[in-house]
Amino acid sequence: MTEQELDEMFSTAIEVAKEAGKVIRDGFYKEKTVDTKISAADLVTETDQAIEKMVHAMITKKFPDHRFIGEESTAESGEKHQLTDDPTWIIDPIDGTTNFVNHVQEVSFSLGVMVNKKTVIGVVYAPIKEEMFSARLGKGAYLNSEKLKASDITDLKEAVIIFEGGNSRDAKLLEEKVKNIHALIAHSRGIRAYGSAAVNLCHVAAGRGQGYVEYGLHIWDFIAGALIATEAGAVVLDPTGSDLDPLRQRVLCACSPEVAKALSQILTHIDTGYD
Amino acid sequence: MTEQELDEMFSTAIEVAKEAGKVIRDGFYKEKTVDTKISAADLVTETDQAIEKMVHAMITKKFPDHRFIGEESTAESGEKHQLTDDPTWIIDPIDGTTNFVNHVQEVSFSLGVMVNKKTVIGVVYAPIKEEMFSARLGKGAYLNSEKLKASDITDLKEAVIIFEGGNSRDAKLLEEKVKNIHALIAHSRGIRAYGSAAVNLCHVAAGRGQGYVEYGLHIWDFIAGALIATEAGAVVLDPTGSDLDPLRQRVLCACSPEVAKALSQILTHIDTGYD
Repeated sequence: MTEQELDEMFSTAIEVAKEAGKVIRDGFYKEKTVDTKISAADLVTETDQAIEKMVHAMITKKFPDHRFIGEESTAESGEKHQLTDDPTWIIDPIDGTTNFVNHVQEVSFSLGVMVNKKTVIGVVYAPIKEEMFSARLGKGAYLNSEKLKASDITDLKEAVIIFEGGNSRDAKLLEEKVKNIHALIAHSRGIRAYGSAAVNLCHVAAGRGQGYVEYGLHIWDFIAGALIATEAGAVVLDPTGSDLDPLRQRVLCACSPEVAKALSQILTHIDTGYD
Repeated sequence: MTEQELDEMFSTAIEVAKEAGKVIRDGFYKEKTVDTKISAADLVTETDQAIEKMVHAMITKKFPDHRFIGEESTAESGEKHQLTDDPTWIIDPIDGTTNFVNHVQEVSFSLGVMVNKKTVIGVVYAPIKEEMFSARLGKGAYLNSEKLKASDITDLKEAVIIFEGGNSRDAKLLEEKVKNIHALIAHSRGIRAYGSAAVNLCHVAAGRGQGYVEYGLHIWDFIAGALIATEAGAVVLDPTGSDLDPLRQRVLCACSPEVAKALSQILTHIDTGYD
């Protein structure tokens, strides 16, 4: 893949994110038709589906031989997505659908591009706050035009950690998550929860908090944000401390290796499955 | 108290909030000298203290016979504050000091005015996001110049609920809080945590979430936000369901009486003391 091809892909990613952002903004204050996937907490809206179709069409037109993984098409087909070495655009039309439905502002469009299973482009656009986060492999991370740098805190006791309760209401999973919340409060300076995995990773990238951990995610929730955080100097790993596996449904992000290690040690590592 | 006097007090409150906001903004990106009060999680900065002195001077100059309760002066004197029937200005110079220190954007200046122990003015200014929330008793609540209306959701299962882990690391208190977090996740659509009580109440006022509950607060954390939420049509109570007692160190806010009642029923009501 040439530098010029990557430039074109990056321009397309930004363009696509802006278009998706317009649709999100239009829908944000309207009455929504809500359908439920797994539980009342996991919401699909017309807007998610409309954005994914639009984005798929835009990308296919420019890069007809690239592959595409989207949250909504995966949910519809019921099939597992396959991650190959081909250039692959990975989309979450609205990360933070619950926020979108309940008028909470942290909603984002998330787009990551992988080549040879390595993320080369990450774009997270939070249109209600007009924040465009972006990164290219080896070229740094940006919020709009401002370069991002993660916090330099190394002691978990001084760190603010982001987590999520998540959408599942499975009793056993919930109990494990609550145990982790307990450990996070006890060992950190405080916890925060915003309801969008992609935004959470960008918060750490921007130094607005020093860590983030979540179990029960999918590749489209975190692949773009993970590159943005990494390019801002943060550490993104599997919560156990091993390399991030994009199909393993979980992510740990910290501003420094020290905070990452401390987080990994206090958490109970939940296995929600493999995509 | 005449309408004209209340108008003057309201203008002063807005003016004071803008001045405090400037100091908060200036300090937000600077290196901070941090001292600890109760635990590493409860931070006092030079900025808190500087704002409180400035605000006290501004108010005393205009209203020399009014009383003043401020977070920092109360902490310094070590005395309990006394709430009388006199006009009383109640200030939190920075609500969300941990956010301020850790570069998280939800920091606010909070100012409530009580007359005959009734809140007549509430102003919460979040200067990093340039959001000025304000309310006068019987006259509605505003975000900048936009009138606020709480969400019309009545079913807790459809509601997003804000909570806080808080600053205390007392093991028993933490266990009770975690039990409540568990109950909140299990019964609501999702939980959020932003790290500023005043901002949390304004989020409910603005329909960005449908409820908020916290134990272990003080009057300056919630008195302004409580009026803003009430004037936006939300319900603000003691978590047990009885009337809010501003010295009781706890608050429950919900977009509707139905959500308030459901929240009250699932929570374990923690008694952290009486101011």
